[in-house]
Amino acid sequence: MTDTNQRWLLTHRPHGVIKDSDFTLDTGPIPKPGPGEFLVRVTHLSFDPTQRGWLAFDSYLPAVKIGDPVRASAVGQVIESNHPDFKPGQMVQGGLGWQEYVVSSGMTELGPIMQLFTGFTPEQTLGVFGITGLTAWFGLTDLGKPEKGDTVLVSGAAGATGSVVVQVAKALGCKVIGIAGGPDKCGWVTGVAGADACIDYKRENVAERIHALAPGGVNVVFENVGGDILEAALMNLAMKARVVLCGGISSYNVENPNEVKGIRTYMRLVVQRARMEGFIILDYTPRFAEGMQALAGLIAEGKLATAEDIQHGFENCPSTLRRLFEGKNLGKQLLKLTDPPLPVV
Amino acid sequence: MTDTNQRWLLTHRPHGVIKDSDFTLDTGPIPKPGPGEFLVRVTHLSFDPTQRGWLAFDSYLPAVKIGDPVRASAVGQVIESNHPDFKPGQMVQGGLGWQEYVVSSGMTELGPIMQLFTGFTPEQTLGVFGITGLTAWFGLTDLGKPEKGDTVLVSGAAGATGSVVVQVAKALGCKVIGIAGGPDKCGWVTGVAGADACIDYKRENVAERIHALAPGGVNVVFENVGGDILEAALMNLAMKARVVLCGGISSYNVENPNEVKGIRTYMRLVVQRARMEGFIILDYTPRFAEGMQALAGLIAEGKLATAEDIQHGFENCPSTLRRLFEGKNLGKQLLKLTDPPLPVV
Repeated sequence: MTDTNQRWLLTHRPHGVIKDSDFTLDTGPIPKPGPGEFLVRVTHLSFDPTQRGWLAFDSYLPAVKIGDPVRASAVGQVIESNHPDFKPGQMVQGGLGWQEYVVSSGMTELGPIMQLFTGFTPEQTLGVFGITGLTAWFGLTDLGKPEKGDTVLVSGAAGATGSVVVQVAKALGCKVIGIAGGPDKCGWVTGVAGADACIDYKRENVAERIHALAPGGVNVVFENVGGDILEAALMNLAMKARVVLCGGISSYNVENPNEVKGIRTYMRLVVQRARMEGFIILDYTPRFAEGMQALAGLIAEGKLATAEDIQHGFENCPSTLRRLFEGKNLGKQLLKLTDPPLPVV
Repeated sequence: MTDTNQRWLLTHRPHGVIKDSDFTLDTGPIPKPGPGEFLVRVTHLSFDPTQRGWLAFDSYLPAVKIGDPVRASAVGQVIESNHPDFKPGQMVQGGLGWQEYVVSSGMTELGPIMQLFTGFTPEQTLGVFGITGLTAWFGLTDLGKPEKGDTVLVSGAAGATGSVVVQVAKALGCKVIGIAGGPDKCGWVTGVAGADACIDYKRENVAERIHALAPGGVNVVFENVGGDILEAALMNLAMKARVVLCGGISSYNVENPNEVKGIRTYMRLVVQRARMEGFIILDYTPRFAEGMQALAGLIAEGKLATAEDIQHGFENCPSTLRRLFEGKNLGKQLLKLTDPPLPVV
């Protein structure tokens, strides 16, 4: 335990691809918890595409303020505490942000700080049992409503959320077509996650391949990418298809909003009597336990493999976030700062 | 009653705006009904934006075959009959097409030929109680699900379908914002149809005006236009909004599908947890009586004014269809060919 606390503060709202110079690495004293507060040492940071939006503009959450630490889900360990519900040695999760140490009274912009569920590692907590896995579970089951025998198309299928969607859909008895970039990811999507097929969008014509793999159209689309991929999906809808709009990573780094790739094939929703619906996982907070139990059940049955890309070093926060948009991560993107400094209680 | 039958046959699939030369005016003998058949004199033709698609490509119905009469909803009178269910003098409706006389055994590509409902004029039959009015009723109530106090945005608000949507939404206790082209149409939408406001898309910034009129966003969008209008609507959704995708007339005459205006603001569906859903009115055929009763009830209560633009002369079929895409019609576009030649029974 050093005497200093490092924090990555937002300096400029990013334009296009995020740059290290959009942030400032700030060094200061470790904060002291006041009455009713506790001090957490952050051990693992979660990296999520939605952070790109938080840095740039107000959306479902207000934008991160200039000069504030970057908002991020994280796991850490309580080091000192003047709070009756938290004691030193406990592992906790919450919106701790890009900082080594943080003082809290228990609430963050991403919800309350909570103890880790028994038996879950920090990696699982931020991955399959965290926002990304729960996004997959509730988006697929609540909006996609796949039935046994349906064909489910998943973009970003090697990503943290998509990889869980693929496996949940398989477990529900669906035919699953993944879309991912490059042979390594596609090999993982079919070989490990168990998709029936995976389209390599970097080398194949996505619309033609979907049509070849699902001539009758796809019943559910779980969309993480947007742009050309979404256009191709809309061209291949079955009747009464459900398009679950989870993300649109292809547009997140576009400098000028007018340059976002527009979707020209939206009238296919009319012809196919289909639905496209968006959601934000924070709305499902009251049902998180239900989702975690379902996912834990699939893991126990051997039906849900997880993948993590774990980077190291607090100085690498910006470059680790950039990896998401460079398509470098297979599975959940994490950054490990340190092992817990105290014995875990 | 002349001795000849005129028909407008499809000669070329249209590119861009339809031209008279896409069709051939054919003259031949009046057909004779065989056993189990009957002869109809077409009296009124319905003109609908979806016909543009039928001429060009297979969609929810196969494209009109080259050399065939143009598919169209119509009203006519039975002139001769060898069919037990149809007798001379009866007024009937169905997919009779662009032809003065037609022999049928009772079925068309647009469903069975049926008698007019008692008390409905040919104009009402093709308008408010026809496909356009039923599209308004089922699209708004079944997909839009407006609740009292909701704000409902209606594009194409002076059109056959939009004008009914405006009035049904008002009758359901909603605040209604119409979008139409030009002061005459906007004046009708507010003055006669009773919308709370109408945006003139030819002179006003639609997105800014929606925001000014509904700072909290709109709960329901009934979309007939697509393109820039749909983009503006998506920028102004309330939480959990429902976008009813009925049509996209702005794209119907685009020559190259790649030049269709793409929708860049679709990620607003995520941020606002909103839904965009398409439908085809033919799916509601089993419930048409329910819709007609509801609309008749509103007319009886004085809550549903109708408007028709009635052209004349069979030779004007192509130019009357073109009126829809030139924005010339206020209300339902019809072409009257003749009064019924026989006494109506």
